[in-house]
Parts: sequence; C-alpha cells; structure tokens
Amino acid sequence: MKITCKQQDLSRGLSIVSHAVSSRSTLPILANILLSTDQGRLKLSATNLEIGINCLIDAEVLEDGSTTVPAKTFTDLVNSLRQGQVELTVAEESHDVNVKSTGSNANIKGMDPSEFPLIPSAEGDEEPIILEAGLLKEMISQVVFAAADDDSRPVLTGVLVEVANEETSFAAADAFRLALRVAPLPGHTASHNSILIPARTLSELARILPSDGAVQMVVTPNRSQVLFHTEHIDLVSRLIEGTFPNIKAAIPKEHTTRAVVETKEFAAAVKTVTPFARDSSNITRIKISSGQGDEAGAGSLTLEATAEDIGNNITTINAAVDGPDQEIIFNVRYLGEVLGILDTPEVALEVTSAARPGVVKPVSAAEYIYVIMPMSTNR
Amino acid sequence: MKITCKQQDLSRGLSIVSHAVSSRSTLPILANILLSTDQGRLKLSATNLEIGINCLIDAEVLEDGSTTVPAKTFTDLVNSLRQGQVELTVAEESHDVNVKSTGSNANIKGMDPSEFPLIPSAEGDEEPIILEAGLLKEMISQVVFAAADDDSRPVLTGVLVEVANEETSFAAADAFRLALRVAPLPGHTASHNSILIPARTLSELARILPSDGAVQMVVTPNRSQVLFHTEHIDLVSRLIEGTFPNIKAAIPKEHTTRAVVETKEFAAAVKTVTPFARDSSNITRIKISSGQGDEAGAGSLTLEATAEDIGNNITTINAAVDGPDQEIIFNVRYLGEVLGILDTPEVALEVTSAARPGVVKPVSAAEYIYVIMPMSTNR
Repeated sequence: MKITCKQQDLSRGLSIVSHAVSSRSTLPILANILLSTDQGRLKLSATNLEIGINCLIDAEVLEDGSTTVPAKTFTDLVNSLRQGQVELTVAEESHDVNVKSTGSNANIKGMDPSEFPLIPSAEGDEEPIILEAGLLKEMISQVVFAAADDDSRPVLTGVLVEVANEETSFAAADAFRLALRVAPLPGHTASHNSILIPARTLSELARILPSDGAVQMVVTPNRSQVLFHTEHIDLVSRLIEGTFPNIKAAIPKEHTTRAVVETKEFAAAVKTVTPFARDSSNITRIKISSGQGDEAGAGSLTLEATAEDIGNNITTINAAVDGPDQEIIFNVRYLGEVLGILDTPEVALEVTSAARPGVVKPVSAAEYIYVIMPMSTNR
Repeated sequence: MKITCKQQDLSRGLSIVSHAVSSRSTLPILANILLSTDQGRLKLSATNLEIGINCLIDAEVLEDGSTTVPAKTFTDLVNSLRQGQVELTVAEESHDVNVKSTGSNANIKGMDPSEFPLIPSAEGDEEPIILEAGLLKEMISQVVFAAADDDSRPVLTGVLVEVANEETSFAAADAFRLALRVAPLPGHTASHNSILIPARTLSELARILPSDGAVQMVVTPNRSQVLFHTEHIDLVSRLIEGTFPNIKAAIPKEHTTRAVVETKEFAAAVKTVTPFARDSSNITRIKISSGQGDEAGAGSLTLEATAEDIGNNITTINAAVDGPDQEIIFNVRYLGEVLGILDTPEVALEVTSAARPGVVKPVSAAEYIYVIMPMSTNR
C-alpha cells in the first residue's frame, strides 16, 4: 500500500473514528485502526464491537493495500505533524507502516488486517430512510439524555426510532421521565418496524455527523444492526432487543393548568435552586399561581428547595398561567436537563394535579413532548 | 451585616478565592469562605492553611459585620444568579446569610467567623519589593514547571526567589533540570535574604493576578510567610525551610556547539517524536550537525526516538550550527516543557559533550537559562 493525503484530512478522519477504538478489549487488534484503500480513497475504520465507524478521506492511491496500526500512537504522530502532504507506505509482506512528512520519517508496527472484524457496509434490503443531518442531530440531542444510563433494564438505555406515515419519531425514557420528538418525513411512504438504538450510539453519531447533508439509515437484513451512511462516514451499531414501554400510554392526554414562561428565565431559576435541592434527592416544589386574588394579579411560577444542613432558596419568575393554581414536586435535575436542550424562547409547563405527571413542551411548531413523574413527600 | 454588590463582582471574587478553599480538611470551617466588611468594601477570604487569599470587591456597606458560608453552595448560588444587584444580609446573633436578587431569595447556614483562621495582612517590617504583574506572571510560568512535584526533597518543590543589586531572580530545579529567570528591578537597592516559595503557590498567584499593575511582595517579620499584595487581592503563603542547591554551580560556563532553531519547529519536532519515546523513559537522541561535508552544507538538528514495540521516528529541522557535530540524549519531555513556555521566535541549544548538561536559551534580551542533564544508554 502506498498513498499520499493531506495531514489535515487524516487528522480529521482519525478524530472521527477514534471514539469507536476499544483500548481495553481482550482483542488487542481493537486498539488499532484499519487503514485500507477504497476506490481511490483512504478508508479509516475502528470498532469496539458495539459500534463501528468507517471514514473515507481523499487521497492519492499509488498502490492498493491495507494494514492496522495502534490508534493512539498513529493519532498522536499524525496530530503532531505539520499541515501538508503525508505519505503512508506499507511494504509488501509487512504490516508496518512508514509515515513520511516534511522532515519526519516514522515507522509504526502494525498487525495483520485480516484479523480485524468486518464492519458491514450500506447494503440492507430495506429501502433506506433519508434524514437531514442537522435535523437528525437535533432530534438526537432532544431525547438521548432521557435514556437510562444503567443497564438494569437494557431497553431503557435505547432510543425507540419509528418511521411510518411520512413521519419519524425518536423516543427515550427511564423510570421517571420520557422524551419524544416527532418530525415529518415527506415522501417517505414505506413503513418500517420500529427499532431500538443504543442512546450512546446516537450521541456518538451526533458528534461525528456534519451539520448538513443527507444521512441514510438502513437496518441490516438480519435486523440486528443499523447503519448510518453519509458521503464520507459510515456508523454501524448493534440494536437492542426487547419491547419498549408503551409511550402513548405514558403521555398525559389533558391538563388543567398551563404556565408559559421564558426558557432562559426558567433555566436560570432551576440553576439557582439546584444547590439547595442536591442533598435532598433534588426535591423541588413548583408552585404555579395565576395571580388572581393577588394585588398585582400577575401569573408566576415559583421554585422552592430546602436542604436541612445548607439552607433554602425560593425563586419566582413571571408566567402566563391558564387554569387553577397548582403545586407539584419534581426532581429539579430532570427540569434542568430538558431546559438545557430546548432553544425556543418560551416553554410551557402543563400539570393536572400533584400526583399526575407534568409535561414540558417548547412553544413552537416542532412536535416535542417531555413527561416528568412527580415526586411525593410524606406529609 | 448588610451589603449590596454586583453579582459579576461577587462571582469574580469567589473564583479568585475558591482555589484556597480546602474541602477535605479536618477543620470543617476551611470549606467555608469568610465574608466581612472592610472599609466600605466586601472582603472574601479563604485558606487551606498552606495559602490564604483575600479578595476585596466593591460594595455598598449598609451595616458592618462578618460570617462564613460553605464555599460550594454559596458559589453555585451566586454563579446561577442573574447579573445585577445582590443583597447579602446576616441577622444579628446569627451566622446565616440571606441572599436576595431579582426573583430569588435564599438562606445559607453559616459558621462562626471567629473560628476562621487569621490571614495576615500586608504589614511586614521589610521594605516591600514592587514587581510588575505581567512580568511576575511571565517569570513564574518560565520556572515553576521545573520544580519537583513529589515531596521527597521538599526544597525542590519550591522556587528560589532572590532580590539583590537591582535584580530579581526566580529559580526552580529538580534532579534533572533547572530553570532560571533574571529580571531587572531598577531602583530597588535594598538587599533581601533569599526565600523559597512553594511552586504551587506561585502557580496559583499567576492564575489570580491581573495582567498589569503593581504587586507588592513582603516577607512577614518571623520570615515564615510571604505576602503578595495588589489593590484587590492578597495572597499569603508559607515559605519552605531548607537550603536550595547551588544554582551557579549547576549552570555550564561554556559550550562547544550552539544550534539556533525556530522555536515552533523545534516544539513540533519534539511533539512528533514524543509518542515513540514515551515507552522508553522518554529517551530521545539529539544530533546536531553543521552540515560540513554534506552536499547541501546546511546545519540541522535531528531528533530520534525508538520504541521496541511501537516503531521509531526520525525528525530533522534546520539549524544554524556553530561548533563541531554533537550527539546527546535527553528526556524529550523536559525539552517539550521548556519549548512550551518560550515565546521568542528562535531558541538556542548549547552542548559540550554527550556526558555534560545541555542548555536551552531564548534568542532574546531576557535573561533565561534552562539546563537539562543528559541521559546515558548502555552501549
């Protein structure tokens, strides 16, 4: 193998595949990156057996071939080289790679590329689902944080992805909250079985995707893996088996009180009470008041947290309130996380009673719903 | 106590004193920050008994007084408040502080300020030494990294500070290298005994100092502490007792070969060979060649590192060489660290023989010397 490419391209490609490198596996070759020529380009590949990433970079291929090299040493070396041309040469009968750049000449010991696990490519038998990269990144960021991060119920570590009726929905939930984002998929009339993608995979995907362009999503024929494909990047992930909880049943159909507040004010108020809620399981009392009967008559939303040893905090912000006054207790962390990812100027909080789940929604056209279970205190 | 101040000022002040807070001490009050009124300003103080920091911020003092509050809770709260006026009130007979800001009303439990250790103020009996803040920060950054970071020889964890003959010098050393920076101190004719300041203290001082203005340095009458004083900040630190090695004896008086190279090129070359030196005690062979006898006839500096299991790297850069060819082995980390803090376009490497220390100097008017001991390999 003999190729030349730009240091910048190689460095960017390595940063994309690096997160799939497994440095602690019992299979030493998983700490390596597979370098191979592919139709006039250089392909970098890494996998930890849960996800696999391919990245194609522009190169001048003088001689086809492949090898695998330790990810850390190779990445450190490439990142330290000056911008400009880099020449990679693998001698025949050898797996070692010679890396030449202005003034620098390095040799890195490699391992047999035939031992590297195969990363499937974009050939499923289903019709691929085409998503816009920017929208996909947004949908991912709006649901992944609600997935469970412990493995006690594996299905809850996944994001449920459904495609039907020219719509796609992404949903994630743990035992205490649920996030659902729906987006139109105009023209895509084919119907697909729902799949459960590990939330970690989607976070990784959001990290490496470009901010625009088309992304193809395909499920492999045996339905055990999903593949995301762009012009330069493939990401393959296993799917989670099992049945996801019924989302529709968990979403409240109605509410009695709705408070519309400024997103930034609400987020700042949550941040202000958090230090006082931290030592009491994040318990924060939310009071919604329409202000009727008050002198001022203005609606408000009050957050109150008390920590025995530390002190207490009461923070009030303006709210446009529709419906009777309400009082409900939430885990303030769950509020902080959803407010951190919504970028509409206003959000609505909808509640029914102290014992029923509350709902946070952006005040916008996008269909997004976040359900939080209330906490109870023994009174 | 009752004061109002700006949230921004309070937040900045807390970030300055926060690094002296000791959250794991057996004295719980050291996890607190002392708030006290001081001549129409608010004084924030924290100490971990090794260093103490006072920071004065502008405030409107309505009623004098003091208290101490948990640093983490108070800082988290203040940082979450909106910009604007904050009102702090400590009721008489109480140590708890009430923090009021637009929409937010918090109470934080405090502890008796009389239990807080006293941080000495700027009254020494020596004439204070006046240093320019920007120069002081530069001098600190150019020597602290050479101090030892383990406590096996406590004197080597300090920086030796000397003031005499209208000059000040900062020096630090471990068993393998030495950094010395000298700067003029025009008009300061008083002579002082040398002192040994913990390198950690100076790193902290460089972090909190403004980028310009005057800094007063005073040693306390009992010669156990040093105090740095600016308009808004005091930092007090213990001094290290003991005798620092003789620096003058460790600095080579002469050299046979001098190579002048571009600082950035040298730093890049060091970064390029580092991954290959890492597993072999950072051993890197340096070859200085005047190029006489070569066809090109150009001087060069070559770095070479080999790791049995990983591979090898040879990187060559241009050098203006004066003197015979030389070959010497250095710990490449020691080269990388000094090149990271020198900001002149060019540096000089001076060597005598493979067994004698080498010297790195900036090519500039500033008096800075960095001595590295060579390594030996068994050949």
